[in-house]
Amino acid sequence: MSVAEAVTELSRLLGDRLSQSKSDRDTHGQCESHFDPAPPDAVAYPESTEEVAEIVRICAAHGAPVVGWGTGTSLEGHALAVRGGVTVDFARMNRVLEVADEDMLAVVQPGLTREDLNTDLRATGLFFPVDPGANASLGGMAATRASGTTAVRYGTMRHNVLGLEAVLADGRVIRTGSRAPKSSAGYDLTALFLGSEGTLGLITELTLRLHGQPEAVSAAVCAFPDMGSAVEAVITTIQSGIPMARIEFVDAASAAAFNAYADAGMEETPHLLVEFHGSPSGVAEQAERFGEIVTDAGGSGFRWASKPEDRAALWKLRHNAYFACRAIRPDAWGITTDVCVPISKLAEAVEETAADIGQSGIPGPILGHVGDGNFHSLLLPEAGNKAEWAEAKALAGRMAERALRLGGTVTGEHGIGMGKTAYMDAEHGEGWQVMGAIKRALDPEGLMNPGKLVPANR
Amino acid sequence: MSVAEAVTELSRLLGDRLSQSKSDRDTHGQCESHFDPAPPDAVAYPESTEEVAEIVRICAAHGAPVVGWGTGTSLEGHALAVRGGVTVDFARMNRVLEVADEDMLAVVQPGLTREDLNTDLRATGLFFPVDPGANASLGGMAATRASGTTAVRYGTMRHNVLGLEAVLADGRVIRTGSRAPKSSAGYDLTALFLGSEGTLGLITELTLRLHGQPEAVSAAVCAFPDMGSAVEAVITTIQSGIPMARIEFVDAASAAAFNAYADAGMEETPHLLVEFHGSPSGVAEQAERFGEIVTDAGGSGFRWASKPEDRAALWKLRHNAYFACRAIRPDAWGITTDVCVPISKLAEAVEETAADIGQSGIPGPILGHVGDGNFHSLLLPEAGNKAEWAEAKALAGRMAERALRLGGTVTGEHGIGMGKTAYMDAEHGEGWQVMGAIKRALDPEGLMNPGKLVPANR
Repeated sequence: MSVAEAVTELSRLLGDRLSQSKSDRDTHGQCESHFDPAPPDAVAYPESTEEVAEIVRICAAHGAPVVGWGTGTSLEGHALAVRGGVTVDFARMNRVLEVADEDMLAVVQPGLTREDLNTDLRATGLFFPVDPGANASLGGMAATRASGTTAVRYGTMRHNVLGLEAVLADGRVIRTGSRAPKSSAGYDLTALFLGSEGTLGLITELTLRLHGQPEAVSAAVCAFPDMGSAVEAVITTIQSGIPMARIEFVDAASAAAFNAYADAGMEETPHLLVEFHGSPSGVAEQAERFGEIVTDAGGSGFRWASKPEDRAALWKLRHNAYFACRAIRPDAWGITTDVCVPISKLAEAVEETAADIGQSGIPGPILGHVGDGNFHSLLLPEAGNKAEWAEAKALAGRMAERALRLGGTVTGEHGIGMGKTAYMDAEHGEGWQVMGAIKRALDPEGLMNPGKLVPANR
Repeated sequence: MSVAEAVTELSRLLGDRLSQSKSDRDTHGQCESHFDPAPPDAVAYPESTEEVAEIVRICAAHGAPVVGWGTGTSLEGHALAVRGGVTVDFARMNRVLEVADEDMLAVVQPGLTREDLNTDLRATGLFFPVDPGANASLGGMAATRASGTTAVRYGTMRHNVLGLEAVLADGRVIRTGSRAPKSSAGYDLTALFLGSEGTLGLITELTLRLHGQPEAVSAAVCAFPDMGSAVEAVITTIQSGIPMARIEFVDAASAAAFNAYADAGMEETPHLLVEFHGSPSGVAEQAERFGEIVTDAGGSGFRWASKPEDRAALWKLRHNAYFACRAIRPDAWGITTDVCVPISKLAEAVEETAADIGQSGIPGPILGHVGDGNFHSLLLPEAGNKAEWAEAKALAGRMAERALRLGGTVTGEHGIGMGKTAYMDAEHGEGWQVMGAIKRALDPEGLMNPGKLVPANR
């Protein structure tokens, strides 16, 4: 029983779709945040569910860990092979298997990216709304229960996956959910797999809920004198029942970063970026009411983007925020934080965080999906500077503790991976042990993505 | 180790809040559908989570089954004590613990009913939308992943429970979720408990998502020449992105039952009952577009109900459908079916079902939440007539098989309980065994609501 034996058997199964090249192993040993590299022993590129099941059975027989891989855009080290083993890269399982217009659903393979799906859907009048920024794979988004800018209107992956197919740790294949819009038929295994981060099995197919492309879309950016007034405008908008499709906060440092990176021409103060979807008259009404709320809260400098190209530019700016912010200090390590709090605590959470970061002297622009109470700071300690690294980790820790103290969660959308297991006991208490019991029930040997999410003691 | 010892200890703990009276046991040994009575050995009325935990610990120590009880409105025998033991009735844990306006959430005890919660919320401008018809307890609605008329707009319990507290089989208390609108922090234990039907633990507290009371509401009823045209109107409305708050189908037999029961003055043909929520202009626009769709589909006889009392009368009619339909044949046993299919298969599913019921000669009006593809038939075999009983069960079985063949589920909202375990393997295959593995991991002795939902072999 050894990983080497597993690799030999996998080579026989997959031929040159089982790679042991250094470059392939290195590529699959990194993630976008700063973690020590942890390459797998080999990378498998399956082309079907049956192959995935066979890979998992072979790995189980030889005690080799199995790690799933989508596009490698995780920020918490989800797909690092910290105990070696075999990384299963879904790049070759990236097809749209079916689009059912009338049922407003699509059946896809896990390696498909969200942008490719939406390109495919363009002519149907439908779209898949979940948008984490990165052009992530839909399997990865499901495995981390991703969300992003549009969750305030369309929900997260939790709301947009109707069912899935997964290969379990022993190679069994299960299908969860159905094509019906709802069900009360037993434990919600779909929901259990969403956010399980590859620790319970590998997702090999997804049935996704689609939405009608809105008839009319309108977007805007507006400036605020301070954070408090921007957050106040968000809360009032939500409570007024105005259905925002997106509402994003960026702080003064982020606005400055956008100016430097993309010549955005923004005032260097806090901003909200907002979008409305609906009928032409509905969108106009929403935009007008939002405008009044912004003015009342002290906002100004409204710029509307009704033309598709102007909107695309606006959201490109937001999607490139990570790179724009990294460019503030190109020689820095990046620590992306991700907390989510009740809306009533949002101003307090953001202001305390900003003050804490300000005192540290470490650059840390703040931005987030404030309609959900979810915000991030990209902390930028100087590369190689141990004192700054420790200080940045301490800042991130205080953000997490603050979120819990305010009734929130240590991760709104990035997941646990390796980066946040230290907070799981604080957030879930005995519930974390329950997660461990479920893990042991479905993966008694602990071979599925070991070292992530669940308690280490088996 | 015996149930009698558990009851003795529980009497010491609860005094006269532990009842062994025949009437109490009998009341808790029945449900609204036709199942053989199965009374518990005793009924406990706890007043706190701590008491629930102590009850469960005592039962665990003596090997006594534990069954949760809300309002007893289950249609699938969820709360029948088929192996005796102790029924935990949450009637005395029925308080609203907190309403957080700004966060649009409420923290409640599980014995609170949805109507009592909404009465409590009246002055806040907020409401809890999930509406299964019966004035069920919120704990029971969570345990069965209930939905009802408004799910098409506001989602089911899956979408409206942010977090919960539960007592596990060994008496441990866990809290799941948080007060933040979303989270990616590990396995979704909230979702796992929603729909677990008391087999994993007892829910002792719920954090519920509230919604703003709509500024404007408009409801209508309209008639169709046949089922197909009514269903066509529903599909077109959904695909046009018109946000219905409710859209209900009733067939000709149901309309006749409403006339007989409540003098409803309806044409005895298929009908749609619909409701829109939004701003005054939004509702007007939606209503106008819906009117055009109905006319195009061959519908007619629109009656709008804009006044609150007219709307209340309309939905009272719908909510009393169960009693109106039972009154068709007062001496009958009732078998309530509950399937859910993809919208594209709805016409086929309803028409095949109607033809099948028609051939049987057993009364079986059809009605349902067609915006979700969910419909019911209330089958009414003559009480004591074994041949009709067998025929009705066969009809229900064919409905379930038809739903699965069309890509749907054997239960849209009523759950599994005792009534539908026979279909679980057909719907979930190996997934049902996974549910069993999770059950054994969290309740190794099988004492939490035994005989329900999960595979019997341990």
